[in-house]
Amino acid sequence: MTTAQKPDWKAVVARKRAERDALIPAEYDIPASKLPPVDGKSVVSFPATCGLLTPAEVAITEIDDVDVLLAKLAKREYTAAEVLEAYIKRACIAHRLVNPITEIHFDDARRWARELDDELQATGKTRGPLHGLPVSLKDQFRIKGSDATIAYVSYVGRQADHDAVCTALLKEAGAVPFVKTNLPQTIMFAETRNELFGTTLNPHNRLLHTGGSSGGEGALVAIKGSPLGVGTDVGGSVRIPAGMCGLFGLRPSSHRFPYEGAVNSMEGQETIPSVLGPLTRTLSGLTTFTKAILAGRPWLYDPLVPEMPWSQSRYDAAKAKKGLKIGLMSTDLHVHPFPPYERALQVARDALTKAGHDVVPFVPYEPGQGLAIMGDAFCADGGRDVLEAISGCDEPLGPQVTGVGKPEKSAYELWQINKRKTVYRKRALDHWRDAGVDFVLCPTSVYPAMKHDDECWILYTGLWNLLDYTAISLPVSSVDAKLDPKRSSPPHDGWYSDDDRRWNDKYDPDLVDGAPIGLQVVAGRYREEEALGFAETVWHAIRG
Amino acid sequence: MTTAQKPDWKAVVARKRAERDALIPAEYDIPASKLPPVDGKSVVSFPATCGLLTPAEVAITEIDDVDVLLAKLAKREYTAAEVLEAYIKRACIAHRLVNPITEIHFDDARRWARELDDELQATGKTRGPLHGLPVSLKDQFRIKGSDATIAYVSYVGRQADHDAVCTALLKEAGAVPFVKTNLPQTIMFAETRNELFGTTLNPHNRLLHTGGSSGGEGALVAIKGSPLGVGTDVGGSVRIPAGMCGLFGLRPSSHRFPYEGAVNSMEGQETIPSVLGPLTRTLSGLTTFTKAILAGRPWLYDPLVPEMPWSQSRYDAAKAKKGLKIGLMSTDLHVHPFPPYERALQVARDALTKAGHDVVPFVPYEPGQGLAIMGDAFCADGGRDVLEAISGCDEPLGPQVTGVGKPEKSAYELWQINKRKTVYRKRALDHWRDAGVDFVLCPTSVYPAMKHDDECWILYTGLWNLLDYTAISLPVSSVDAKLDPKRSSPPHDGWYSDDDRRWNDKYDPDLVDGAPIGLQVVAGRYREEEALGFAETVWHAIRG
Repeated sequence: MTTAQKPDWKAVVARKRAERDALIPAEYDIPASKLPPVDGKSVVSFPATCGLLTPAEVAITEIDDVDVLLAKLAKREYTAAEVLEAYIKRACIAHRLVNPITEIHFDDARRWARELDDELQATGKTRGPLHGLPVSLKDQFRIKGSDATIAYVSYVGRQADHDAVCTALLKEAGAVPFVKTNLPQTIMFAETRNELFGTTLNPHNRLLHTGGSSGGEGALVAIKGSPLGVGTDVGGSVRIPAGMCGLFGLRPSSHRFPYEGAVNSMEGQETIPSVLGPLTRTLSGLTTFTKAILAGRPWLYDPLVPEMPWSQSRYDAAKAKKGLKIGLMSTDLHVHPFPPYERALQVARDALTKAGHDVVPFVPYEPGQGLAIMGDAFCADGGRDVLEAISGCDEPLGPQVTGVGKPEKSAYELWQINKRKTVYRKRALDHWRDAGVDFVLCPTSVYPAMKHDDECWILYTGLWNLLDYTAISLPVSSVDAKLDPKRSSPPHDGWYSDDDRRWNDKYDPDLVDGAPIGLQVVAGRYREEEALGFAETVWHAIRG
Repeated sequence: MTTAQKPDWKAVVARKRAERDALIPAEYDIPASKLPPVDGKSVVSFPATCGLLTPAEVAITEIDDVDVLLAKLAKREYTAAEVLEAYIKRACIAHRLVNPITEIHFDDARRWARELDDELQATGKTRGPLHGLPVSLKDQFRIKGSDATIAYVSYVGRQADHDAVCTALLKEAGAVPFVKTNLPQTIMFAETRNELFGTTLNPHNRLLHTGGSSGGEGALVAIKGSPLGVGTDVGGSVRIPAGMCGLFGLRPSSHRFPYEGAVNSMEGQETIPSVLGPLTRTLSGLTTFTKAILAGRPWLYDPLVPEMPWSQSRYDAAKAKKGLKIGLMSTDLHVHPFPPYERALQVARDALTKAGHDVVPFVPYEPGQGLAIMGDAFCADGGRDVLEAISGCDEPLGPQVTGVGKPEKSAYELWQINKRKTVYRKRALDHWRDAGVDFVLCPTSVYPAMKHDDECWILYTGLWNLLDYTAISLPVSSVDAKLDPKRSSPPHDGWYSDDDRRWNDKYDPDLVDGAPIGLQVVAGRYREEEALGFAETVWHAIRG
């Protein structure tokens, strides 16, 4: 296509945004004049206090616990239709505040919700374990009838003619997908901004980013515009926004949940597969999602999903286990986590020790090697996939962790990367097994949410993608500018490098005061049940 | 390395073979003059009748059922030492007849067997589920202290300093690895010949090949020089030699069994992973191996093995299931199986129908597409891996299914192959699910064992590697020159192509009279338990 024939990307963007916004009911669209100014103050409560929601709708959307909401739906205390409408309203307000939405499916969702209500009325039975639960989906997940642009301007108009398997299983379980959410261009970055849909803001502090790549989910679920969202994670993209937005986020091992039918960038990159996982406001929501998806037998519809049904006994055993041996990983040996993470780890260690567990130091296996392998895997195509995707209309290329500007590898060289990966994974497995820990507790990131348009450091999460271990981010704390002052001297073990010092220089306690701090519970591979069980133990020790 | 500096490959070969043969005890080494001439007659019984084995040793090695042998070992009816010695003797005779052995570990094995006997004597307990079972391993599996050349001359002398995980788990289960076995150069071919160790012959008819790539195992287990062998399979390499040699062979789904620590060609090729699987003389042996390996918790030692313990209930349910719906796949739509396969399928259909099952036609999903994807995946490196491996001493390159002579793909192009694979697997899964079959029954190959130095056609097995389905080859029949004459006219649906006709022209009933015929039971992905259970049903219907 010559440049002359290419569509004007800015025109496409304007049209796409206008089409989306036209689907926001006028009565739910708060005029800009009535919105609070964009500043460092939290807007999480604004939708509940702005007067648009009825008291019942406020009550519905303030139920953080998905299980509580599901119980009320099953008992017909609420109809699916009214729960959906409450969330539609709140999502519309959220959208004007923090810009999380890419695609709107309100009409479809309303129809599905009515069907669920009719079904329950007629049969006395819920459709499935998620009966009536509105859910938001990261833009990648196809919903029949709308685009899944993954924020590439050139993908606008490629309407899905079928649901992704995840979408279909959610609907089968009774969930009601009603919006899709924002992500960074290429999906290979840990902030959420792109040319097509713009930047998503952090509802706790709109001067800060939401992390990424599932940052639309992070923002929307945190502001209670959705009770549960589905993101994806190839280097931390569920856990980082969960951590930055004060949510729970689960990265399962590869293919435990069905990715089939989701649009992705760099498709065919199998060295480190992207996985999907839920973000929600209580830990039990992650468990409920996991059980519901597995109950749908995803292996019948996704050729990559192994047949591993939910194991209640493994979950129960993990949750009940006394005297756990917990590996505390306080550093990735490359960048020291900012002071609020150090405090969070200290709090966690004290609480878990008090609860009778054995908290021991855990040093990750050669994380530098892991980082190099990840970089080589993600960059192997020399950015061809990304460049092809943006070439359709020459949209500008933003920041990303891909091979753009790097030489393309050959297939043989890619095989050598795979080989290094397997050697690394073997050594790391031996290291983990020899440590004899039940799980590892570590920071979700180096930094809390930071100013928009920064760089990203993803080793604390990416390491577990490379090893394919199950990891859950828990919102254990938040920055307290008084308790977490900037370091006045180097950490006790000194700076690892100029880069370490440079990263830590970015810490601005006053700017990020109150920003959420996440820690990860990391269990082994395909140990979703154990990770969820152990996370309960950690959560209750710290918060209970 | 300049040519001047490279070792003379023929000298390396001569030295390596001499070193190996020096490990054959002189008293077990039958002089060439006392060996039968190489002709079309079976030599399976020769070791039992040549006078070298004692009657007790004949009795031991004639026990085909691994479970029966294990029971006698556990009851101390036989010691591990005497069972091993019987198999060592028979393997030595076998070696002079059909050339299956690459590496000899008799001394280590004798020591391990004595330890097992002492342990059972002292504690009254067997070490594990394979207590005292001699096992042979395809050359890929490292045993500490010997080479794992995979038949590359340039790999001679790279002594392993550790056991492969499979080796270690077998020993932990009480098995006694005592020899390693032959495979083709590159491992990417379905016959078993190479410059380093020569050609392995089929004990049923030494004018014929054994199939491959695990042809050393096929020959050694068939001639009862080993009760159970471990092969590997990336396109049929366990099932083809099992089929050609009249054995049972299991290809599990990828990474169900631990490949870690095995040497391989084309390492890092992950598009279609090679897997390991057992070959043995009774079906129960496959089940016993599977249970024993999984009982060793391979996921603790191999980072790629998912934590999927043996499920007795799934096995029992599959075995007991009545009224199965069985898909009979009589063709790959490219090459018609030779007449003895048609008869074997007919026999199986009649027997299964009589046993109350519903046998329906099954047409595979677009096998031509599958073949193209396999070819592209295996050839992606343009043969660089293979060329590098032989460059060490310029050994001649034999036939192989690799990229030698083809252009090397780029990493981006390899991603596109991966993408096509996933699309194909999704469509094939939908196709399979919609067919609603419990399992598929199909030929293991187009041809029985054929003359040495031919070409190979692997679509009947390779299709299941691409889809990663569990498949078991059963020795259901053998060629009967009278019952299976050469076709006098085209098949009822006509030749698919000149290639189809060309392949079928190779069929020579007189030459291959008596050669084994295998059929595969194919269940879905990670359905080893179901495949083993269904295989029992098929076996009993046909043979019971």
